[in-house]
Amino acid sequence: MAAVTLTGKLEQRDRWRADDCPLAATLEIVGTRSAFLILREAFYGGTRFDEFARRAGISEPVTAARLRELVEHGLLVREPYREPGQRTRDEYRLTERGTALFPTLVALMQWGNRWLNDDGGPVELRHHGCGAVVAAELRCTSGHAVEVGDLDLVSTRR
Amino acid sequence: MAAVTLTGKLEQRDRWRADDCPLAATLEIVGTRSAFLILREAFYGGTRFDEFARRAGISEPVTAARLRELVEHGLLVREPYREPGQRTRDEYRLTERGTALFPTLVALMQWGNRWLNDDGGPVELRHHGCGAVVAAELRCTSGHAVEVGDLDLVSTRR
Repeated sequence: MAAVTLTGKLEQRDRWRADDCPLAATLEIVGTRSAFLILREAFYGGTRFDEFARRAGISEPVTAARLRELVEHGLLVREPYREPGQRTRDEYRLTERGTALFPTLVALMQWGNRWLNDDGGPVELRHHGCGAVVAAELRCTSGHAVEVGDLDLVSTRR
Repeated sequence: MAAVTLTGKLEQRDRWRADDCPLAATLEIVGTRSAFLILREAFYGGTRFDEFARRAGISEPVTAARLRELVEHGLLVREPYREPGQRTRDEYRLTERGTALFPTLVALMQWGNRWLNDDGGPVELRHHGCGAVVAAELRCTSGHAVEVGDLDLVSTRR
C-alpha cells in the first residue's frame, strides 16, 4: 500500500504531535454525519429549518444544534425573511466559507457510488455545460493528476 | 449563493427521500472524527494499534472500536506480524477501498488550511514529482474545472 511520504522534520512521526492538524481542526466543525447531511441539503437549495430536518432525516433538536454550530462557525448565515401574510422566519444560506467545503461532500459521494453500490449509485453529479460526470480529483497546481504514493507531507513552519 | 441544480425527477425535492444517498451511506462508515484521524495515520504510514491511538490522540477503547469497524467495512485489513524475538501482533493496512477515501481527507485538510489558518496552515501536501501543492479539485471527466453552480444532480435510476 502506498503512503504519503513524511518529509523534513515530519519524517520522525513519533517526534511531533498533530495538535494543529488542519484535517482535525476541520472535523471539530463538521465531524458529524448530521452536519454533512445538513450541508448536503443546503447545496441542494434547502434554506429553512423544517426542510433541513425533514430532508436530512434528523431530529429537530439535532437539526437546531447543528444549524447553530454551522452559523457560529460561519459556514451558514441566518437571515430573517417573511412571505406576504406569514410570520417572519429564519432562512439559512451557505457562505463562501461553507461553499468551500463542497469538494469534501463530492469526495464522500463518489466513494459511496463506487464502493457501496454495484451499479454506480442512485445519483451522480454532472457538469451542466457538457454533461460529463464530476469527481473530486487530486491534482497539483501545476496540473498533474496525483495519487497517494506521489505525495509529500511538508511542514510550512520552521 | 449558487446551489446544485436538481434535475428530472429529482427536481421536486420534497417528493423523494434520500434513503440511498451515497454520501449518507459513506458517512455510516466514516461519519466520526476518530475514524478520519485513524485513516489519516494509516495514510501517514501507521500500521500498529498503539501508533493509531497515540498519534490520533484517541483513547484505546475508541481506537479499538474504530479499527474493528474499518476492518469490517473493508477499508483496512488486519494481518498478524512478528518481529524476531517478539510476540505476534496485528498490523493494519489500507486496502484499495480504504485508499480510495484519500480525496476526502485532502479536501478536509485543504479547507482547514484555507479557512481556519491565517497563514495557510502548518502542513501541506505537495506533488513529489514537481513540488507543487496538491488539492482536491472538482473536475468533470471531460477535464473542465467546475464549481457548485455548474452542477446538475442526476438520477441514474428510472
